Amino acid sequence: MMLEELQKTIDRPSQSTVNLLINELKKSFGNRLLTSLAAREFHARDFSSYEAIPPDAVVMAKTTADVVSVVQACSKYKVPVIPFGTGTSAEGHLAALYGGISLDVSEMKNILEVNSEDMDVTVEPGVTRKQLNEHLRDTGLFFPIDPGADASLGGMASTRASGTNAVRYGTMKDNVLSLEVVLSDGRVIRTSRRARKSSSGYDLTRLFVGSEGTLGVITKVTLKLFGIPEATSAAVVSFESLGGAVDSVIEAIQWGMPMARIELLDDVQMSAINNYAGLNYAIKNTLFLEFHGTESGVKSQAELMSELCKEHGGENFSWTSNSEERDKLWAARHDAAYSCIALRPGCSVMPTDVCVPISRLSECILTAKQDIEDAGIIAPIVGHVGDGNFHVQMLIHPDTREEDLRVCGEINKKIIERAISMDGTCTGEHGVGQGKIKYLSQEHGEALSAMRMIKKTFDPIGIMNPGKMIIAAD
Amino acid sequence: MMLEELQKTIDRPSQSTVNLLINELKKSFGNRLLTSLAAREFHARDFSSYEAIPPDAVVMAKTTADVVSVVQACSKYKVPVIPFGTGTSAEGHLAALYGGISLDVSEMKNILEVNSEDMDVTVEPGVTRKQLNEHLRDTGLFFPIDPGADASLGGMASTRASGTNAVRYGTMKDNVLSLEVVLSDGRVIRTSRRARKSSSGYDLTRLFVGSEGTLGVITKVTLKLFGIPEATSAAVVSFESLGGAVDSVIEAIQWGMPMARIELLDDVQMSAINNYAGLNYAIKNTLFLEFHGTESGVKSQAELMSELCKEHGGENFSWTSNSEERDKLWAARHDAAYSCIALRPGCSVMPTDVCVPISRLSECILTAKQDIEDAGIIAPIVGHVGDGNFHVQMLIHPDTREEDLRVCGEINKKIIERAISMDGTCTGEHGVGQGKIKYLSQEHGEALSAMRMIKKTFDPIGIMNPGKMIIAAD
Repeated sequence: MMLEELQKTIDRPSQSTVNLLINELKKSFGNRLLTSLAAREFHARDFSSYEAIPPDAVVMAKTTADVVSVVQACSKYKVPVIPFGTGTSAEGHLAALYGGISLDVSEMKNILEVNSEDMDVTVEPGVTRKQLNEHLRDTGLFFPIDPGADASLGGMASTRASGTNAVRYGTMKDNVLSLEVVLSDGRVIRTSRRARKSSSGYDLTRLFVGSEGTLGVITKVTLKLFGIPEATSAAVVSFESLGGAVDSVIEAIQWGMPMARIELLDDVQMSAINNYAGLNYAIKNTLFLEFHGTESGVKSQAELMSELCKEHGGENFSWTSNSEERDKLWAARHDAAYSCIALRPGCSVMPTDVCVPISRLSECILTAKQDIEDAGIIAPIVGHVGDGNFHVQMLIHPDTREEDLRVCGEINKKIIERAISMDGTCTGEHGVGQGKIKYLSQEHGEALSAMRMIKKTFDPIGIMNPGKMIIAAD
Repeated sequence: MMLEELQKTIDRPSQSTVNLLINELKKSFGNRLLTSLAAREFHARDFSSYEAIPPDAVVMAKTTADVVSVVQACSKYKVPVIPFGTGTSAEGHLAALYGGISLDVSEMKNILEVNSEDMDVTVEPGVTRKQLNEHLRDTGLFFPIDPGADASLGGMASTRASGTNAVRYGTMKDNVLSLEVVLSDGRVIRTSRRARKSSSGYDLTRLFVGSEGTLGVITKVTLKLFGIPEATSAAVVSFESLGGAVDSVIEAIQWGMPMARIELLDDVQMSAINNYAGLNYAIKNTLFLEFHGTESGVKSQAELMSELCKEHGGENFSWTSNSEERDKLWAARHDAAYSCIALRPGCSVMPTDVCVPISRLSECILTAKQDIEDAGIIAPIVGHVGDGNFHVQMLIHPDTREEDLRVCGEINKKIIERAISMDGTCTGEHGVGQGKIKYLSQEHGEALSAMRMIKKTFDPIGIMNPGKMIIAAD
């Protein structure tokens, strides 16, 4: 059914059309047009277990004008264009389902303008979050969104990324002030001015944030920055019961505690991390916490949180404001994904990504754990619990790929349908890509028809990352 | 020119068509269809000095089904429909420029669902912010957005309202979790689930927030709530120099001080307030501040802010955590609008509403003051300076209406063009309505064409609040 729908969107262009396009692009881009299989396969792959279906060619763009010229050429020949940042997305966003051109913006790496007084920065889309924070080091400012991977900021805007500290700083939706976008007909628009708020016209910024390359190509990103907190402290606390861990978080949020990170790792995940990194954390449901504020503020927050966790069965609450220990702790958290892969070397990870209202989070995680147990597989759980978002990290091994995909796909389906029934969403931060398309109707109902109208309006010939996210078919 | 553009959008329906529509509506709505001149004029008026052009009739809706039936009937007869909440908008949003039906949702006042654990609430669009906070009183939660007037939450969503504490809590853009919207063809959509974050599809919520009734009619609003802070304190501090006041604010924001309100009132405004309310504040540029947090937190914030203001010439910093004194202080601030009118009884106010990057705020306000002086008029200034947003409150008197509109319109134009040249916006929080349409091209450039595409897609026959905000004409 899905393929049928896809075919309504766009026909795969003929090889002769593609050749005409490639010849035309070759003239403008010379050796910045890549056609080797290695380059094409590299550009089709992301962090997921989706098949890497290669594009017909790759163009390494250096300027907005480059992007315009590629998009206009693709539009002229009705050939797909798929923007590429660092290849760290997680839902098969980059596979060239209908062939076409991978438009690589990773060399658009200039940090164009830091406005310290206004606490904002404008960057090209290939700038990564680590590069940006490196650059900002001496300004006392930083960009907080941290999805784990050192993703490009254009890509993070495209998937509406978030990660470990969204509970305090919000997601890309909240932190993009403005975008420059190339539309499918080559028009270049700037979605907003740099003022902190505006009631002037439709919110184009938010329309393009999270649109996964299906409405246009992002060529500049203006982001909010934050002052580096005077003090940062981190804490770890473990719980016999997963419910106790989640209830502690709910209460802390209701208290209005401005925690910067609240990460849940279940017992299976803790065991995987211990094995992977040679650590000896308790094999229990564990919260990793971070507090930002003044010296006294982070101390009193940690004390309050320790009390609160105790009431819900939290044990061995240990906190530190020592930056080395803190880094060690967050390195362990960031190892979570690798530690899963290490459970079965050679695997890739199929992560679920539901997000539910926090009152339903315990139930949603516990039933997911039951699904995992029933299927007899090993799948650690890690969650941005302050947001109601968690990932079951299921493993797909090349040797048993078909069977793994079937079993894990079924669990994913169960978890998603349950999350939707709890007024949650099929994807909290990874995006729709290929994998979640089939759940959108269930999640959005009639609103999906409104999304399709938008897709049709901005991409009437269906060349912008086709087969991902929104299928314009009626 | 503007009228010409408007006429491209929609032709005024003939009286016989309107009569057919009214007869049809009469059958469904009986005495909930109002045609008296008084009712029609009341529904055309807002807080601005725009002419109150009455609609042909008013329907008092009670349910989403009522809204659907009115919108479908209007669509069938190609007659405009103009949603009405409390009539407190500020840019002539409600005038029936092409006649049509005022769709009054003020009786849709049910608070449908309070989810305390999830800290959210779903309300009908006629619920006002004060009604909501009254209702929440015992839950320990509150809804922070405060535009001054006791506006309806549907209306606040429609204009992307903010007000005095957006610097801490954000605007309606940040605080609407989900909307139910009736589209121009009668389709009912829910823009999002209740999860705190999602990467699932285009951000329809943000598309309809701030769309001023031009894309659909909002029939339900799901909002984020916040815990009532343990402690609240307020402070007043005055400055000889306006620049000193603004610089204090910039520095406080860069320090990451979580101030809840930072309001600037210039010397003219302070004098007006003293006269109006019999107070004796210093006639100087003044900051009104509010801090939310723990007992010790608000105390240390106030101390820090006092130091910081002193460095920039702040005098007589006085703070209080006494709730009565605090209420008195904010009552004075909320009297600002009335105190302006009292300067010339019988007047209405034409407020400018630009918002600029904060680094340009002093310059923008100071040149605006010069404009006011050059024109020889009296116009107090009040600003949400933490956001970079301020209002010059110019007075329009019925006896000298034409001349006042001309003089004030010119000042408004100068201020807006300067703000746009500073990378700011023509409207920080009031919306576009009628008055800002002519500045959108200058502010948005090519992006305006993208907004027009959206308008055309969602309102192909041009019946949704026509002549406001976005004119779909190409």
